[in-house]
Amino acid sequence: MGSGLLFPAMATATLVIVFVQAAAGQSEMNMLFYMTDNLTGSSETAFPVAGFNGSSSDPGKFGTLVIINDAITKRPEITKSDTDNLVGRAQGTYINTNPVTGLDFLMLFTIIFQNMEYNGSTLQIQGTETFGRPQREYAVVGGTGKFRFARGHVVCTTESSSGKNAVPRFNITFRTN
Amino acid sequence: MGSGLLFPAMATATLVIVFVQAAAGQSEMNMLFYMTDNLTGSSETAFPVAGFNGSSSDPGKFGTLVIINDAITKRPEITKSDTDNLVGRAQGTYINTNPVTGLDFLMLFTIIFQNMEYNGSTLQIQGTETFGRPQREYAVVGGTGKFRFARGHVVCTTESSSGKNAVPRFNITFRTN
Amino acid sequence: MGSGLLFPAMATATLVIVFVQAAAGQSEMNMLFYMTDNLTGSSETAFPVAGFNGSSSDPGKFGTLVIINDAITKRPEITKSDTDNLVGRAQGTYINTNPVTGLDFLMLFTIIFQNMEYNGSTLQIQGTETFGRPQREYAVVGGTGKFRFARGHVVCTTESSSGKNAVPRFNITFRTN
Repeated sequence: MGSGLLFPAMATATLVIVFVQAAAGQSEMNMLFYMTDNLTGSSETAFPVAGFNGSSSDPGKFGTLVIINDAITKRPEITKSDTDNLVGRAQGTYINTNPVTGLDFLMLFTIIFQNMEYNGSTLQIQGTETFGRPQREYAVVGGTGKFRFARGHVVCTTESSSGKNAVPRFNITFRTN
Repeated sequence: MGSGLLFPAMATATLVIVFVQAAAGQSEMNMLFYMTDNLTGSSETAFPVAGFNGSSSDPGKFGTLVIINDAITKRPEITKSDTDNLVGRAQGTYINTNPVTGLDFLMLFTIIFQNMEYNGSTLQIQGTETFGRPQREYAVVGGTGKFRFARGHVVCTTESSSGKNAVPRFNITFRTN
Repeated sequence: MGSGLLFPAMATATLVIVFVQAAAGQSEMNMLFYMTDNLTGSSETAFPVAGFNGSSSDPGKFGTLVIINDAITKRPEITKSDTDNLVGRAQGTYINTNPVTGLDFLMLFTIIFQNMEYNGSTLQIQGTETFGRPQREYAVVGGTGKFRFARGHVVCTTESSSGKNAVPRFNITFRTN
């Protein structure tokens, strides 16, 4: 039963590991999960609504603002039958801020947890994504519910991508004290 | 007079109560006030500017971005003669991020205090509102002036609503150290 | 060579000073630099993409959302030959939130450092600008890379302006612990 204190079996290791950082005497939390961001296809989760061409603007062009409602999962594969996989949603916006490369995006979103003991708690994210760079980093600028006073960082890598759809991997570390 | 300790004459005691949280040895501030958000009527304070139909988009639809300049008051009723009621303004944006229910909104705004000792100071808010849920929570992600280094949370309930106009009640707790 | 480790001569003192704040036992960092925000001209760096007239909206009108990619420099003058001057970019958005004066803007942006030891690190900024006021203040709500866990404030003054182009001066103070 021990591991069940946090989550049943599989989830424990996947989602949340708590450890103590000796230096600052502050406890940190670490999470690992995946976001599915689809700009195309029947499972579209990200939609441009403003830019130089309004809601028909290209997300790859400077100035385009995209609204997202992306699944957050424990494992990168999303299948409708694997209902245990869903952890929550990433809801917010990203804005293309690079007129030269078109590859930088200001990210502003809420991660809303929907499972078990963290149901309803959130993390607030702000940062800049440089698409194509092997590793990116955003800031955790706040949190709610069980994550009140949160601040930290998200190390982001790309687990997989296909055209304009991508599955970034989030390695999140934050403190709440 | 007992309750007058909390809500006396005017703003000073009404607005801010400071208490010490023993556990962390950190002092916290707590505030209670009301926002008036009117999407319709002659006192309109919230206007869509982007979405799938540009500035004529429906705030209740996924993708719509609304710009707000809402009054922040000590008491829920706004009357022009009750000038003592005004505490400041909430200025920023909310974005509809739920394609299924249309009830989730990413909130990004500044609370600009305009009265007495806190005049000119701000709190920075980021979070997700789920309209219709009895209690919601946003994060205080920063502050300026007398609220430098602020971080905390806003517990939000609906004091009253009429059509697309609403008066949410903010119970704000934050630390500045 | 000594000072060259950080920056040539002037830059060392200009950009980063670390000092210890006795009261809280926390170390603070302080930076001083300049942003070049051009809404007009051949070196345009700020572009409206939404508002009541879409991407042709006036930045001086309530509701207009502007996307920026502004140079951050050690000295206020930008010249192409002075390559040592560039420190990074400010990438994000500002939104006109004042229907009466048209002078308030919600600022949401990332400062991306591009030089030397801070290359790739960021600060996350959120706050309200009141254009024309001698001194304004935004919040540092987070950071990444060498500025993980950052929170603090930006004191902003206007170094120079010409029509709709301006060079604000940022005096940034933040803690990372």
